[in-house]
Amino acid sequence: MEIELHLVPEEKRRPVPELKNLVFGRLFTEHMFVMEYDCRRGWHSPRIVPYGPVTLDPAAIVLHYAQTIFEGLKAYWGVDGKIRLFRPWENLKRLNRGADRMCMPRVDEELVLEAIKKLVLIDQAWIPREKGAALYIRPFMFGDEPTLGVKPSHTYTFMIILSPVSAYYQEGFNPVKIYVTDEFVRAAPGGTGEVKAGGNYAASLKAAEVAKAKGYTQVLWLDAVERRYVEEVGTMNIFFYFEDELTTPALSGSILPGITRDSVLKLAHSWGLPVSERRISIEEVIEGAESGRLKECFGTGTAAVISPVGALAYRGREYVINDGKTGPLARRLFEELTGIQYGERPDPFGWTLILT
Amino acid sequence: MEIELHLVPEEKRRPVPELKNLVFGRLFTEHMFVMEYDCRRGWHSPRIVPYGPVTLDPAAIVLHYAQTIFEGLKAYWGVDGKIRLFRPWENLKRLNRGADRMCMPRVDEELVLEAIKKLVLIDQAWIPREKGAALYIRPFMFGDEPTLGVKPSHTYTFMIILSPVSAYYQEGFNPVKIYVTDEFVRAAPGGTGEVKAGGNYAASLKAAEVAKAKGYTQVLWLDAVERRYVEEVGTMNIFFYFEDELTTPALSGSILPGITRDSVLKLAHSWGLPVSERRISIEEVIEGAESGRLKECFGTGTAAVISPVGALAYRGREYVINDGKTGPLARRLFEELTGIQYGERPDPFGWTLILT
Repeated sequence: MEIELHLVPEEKRRPVPELKNLVFGRLFTEHMFVMEYDCRRGWHSPRIVPYGPVTLDPAAIVLHYAQTIFEGLKAYWGVDGKIRLFRPWENLKRLNRGADRMCMPRVDEELVLEAIKKLVLIDQAWIPREKGAALYIRPFMFGDEPTLGVKPSHTYTFMIILSPVSAYYQEGFNPVKIYVTDEFVRAAPGGTGEVKAGGNYAASLKAAEVAKAKGYTQVLWLDAVERRYVEEVGTMNIFFYFEDELTTPALSGSILPGITRDSVLKLAHSWGLPVSERRISIEEVIEGAESGRLKECFGTGTAAVISPVGALAYRGREYVINDGKTGPLARRLFEELTGIQYGERPDPFGWTLILT
Repeated sequence: MEIELHLVPEEKRRPVPELKNLVFGRLFTEHMFVMEYDCRRGWHSPRIVPYGPVTLDPAAIVLHYAQTIFEGLKAYWGVDGKIRLFRPWENLKRLNRGADRMCMPRVDEELVLEAIKKLVLIDQAWIPREKGAALYIRPFMFGDEPTLGVKPSHTYTFMIILSPVSAYYQEGFNPVKIYVTDEFVRAAPGGTGEVKAGGNYAASLKAAEVAKAKGYTQVLWLDAVERRYVEEVGTMNIFFYFEDELTTPALSGSILPGITRDSVLKLAHSWGLPVSERRISIEEVIEGAESGRLKECFGTGTAAVISPVGALAYRGREYVINDGKTGPLARRLFEELTGIQYGERPDPFGWTLILT
């Protein structure tokens, strides 16, 4: 299928604002990608059009039953003036796994990658130039059939929108304090926690609100069954660097298979670090923090890349990790990953896709 | 706040189609109710307007993170020509409990009830006249702030739409066969299963698809922790009538507190039946089906009122209940509840609200 272009005429384009101190996900570029699905035609009419509103019937399934999934990746303006994507193939595979789980139609991964490339190049003036900043790419799809029956939609809309984002660490690469919830649960095995379904995120808001009210930046989620094993932190995966092992919770069915997570595992392994994916109990983490066996803890995700954790609160007590400071492994991983993303360092794994 | 009316002029109204053999939730009436919320003004501009599309920014939170909740109730055309609602106050209380859980603003229950009443009266020509048919009322609200940050929306839209629905049992009050899933989970304690969050419904689609492919009408959900205790059936609550006890799963935090569920408990108690809310294991159900101690099983919900279960499949075996026939208790409850709803029987609990 050919992607049609209906672009804003050059003379009518908005001036690109100064891309500094941006609040995440509030500013959008001039264009977006759209295509629609119905059972007879499949996906059809792929096109790049001016950024503009979506019109839905009030009975559209997404508004009632939340049949929606999304992805998130970034385009980086490299030190060599080239634009790079980071492992976009993984996002597309995950999107299709999500489509399967949520009874939605799969997309053509090649077509969507082509759409991302074209859209980013068209709006490349919106990619911030400084290191750390990037153009956030948000592919998403939702069921929009107007029916109140609880069943998969017969029609879907797929879109890609772009948002310039500032560096995550505006005030230095500093650790956050996290709050272990034993009240709320993010996802259970047999649920939708391993895909990027919208409902997972709505369900997480309350716990984040409680954590923030107590003065913590993120929630540490425990497993739904025993409320004992660590799963994720906020909307990131989590790693623990014990004396002799870098470990992260194994993909149990309720944990999102993060692309940064996978990249950290591969990088650390290539450096000769003993790496594992296994069950990690909150008791082991606390014992490690107290004894000093836990040297570092950090979250991983597309937004922050690496987010060091300096302290965690559990059942009324606070436990400090690495004296509340960013550790050398977190720093090394951050620098290596961003080095690859911004074209400063070699890319031995073939993770980047150069657009220009 | 005054509800403003912007109605379709009489001469421009659509003719009401013949209200027969309607597929659930596909036909909508001439008008809808809308109001908006922002942090400064709170809920504002409540109005009844012609049914028409919703316009959203592509970054609207509901499309990405599924911050959406809904309710469902019906208006019944009584045998006495009066229009009745059934326990609407309970829907509004539950809506606000949902708002709390999903970090959304509460609505003014009196205002929303007023809106429901006005809207139903304006579109009363769309209420089917036969017993069993009704006008389905769907209040819902969603976050629509255009931001990709994972946080509660600062702006919301609340709407009410109406859909005429035919009698659920077009071909007689016959039992269904249900499939016990031990693969998928609907909700976990600490999650959102006890509110009508959109994400719960999207998460349930896959299990329903699997059940249907195997020839079953509904999924029977087990608890997320032990995969042993019965929770709900499809989008209904479930009851078991053992020899000496009518029982339903206790509200554990992952079970929706259904209004029909509560009505069945109150009615059965008033009839002198021993009624309980407790944990019910799938083994107890199967043992009961095999020994005959389980006399009846049925689902309860607004759509079907009572949905008898004639057989259940678990781990490759099928168990028949009450010879696959509708039992006398299910029938008595169905007749009593619909009798109250359609004004054929007295309403000793004060459950109905008469609009005209």
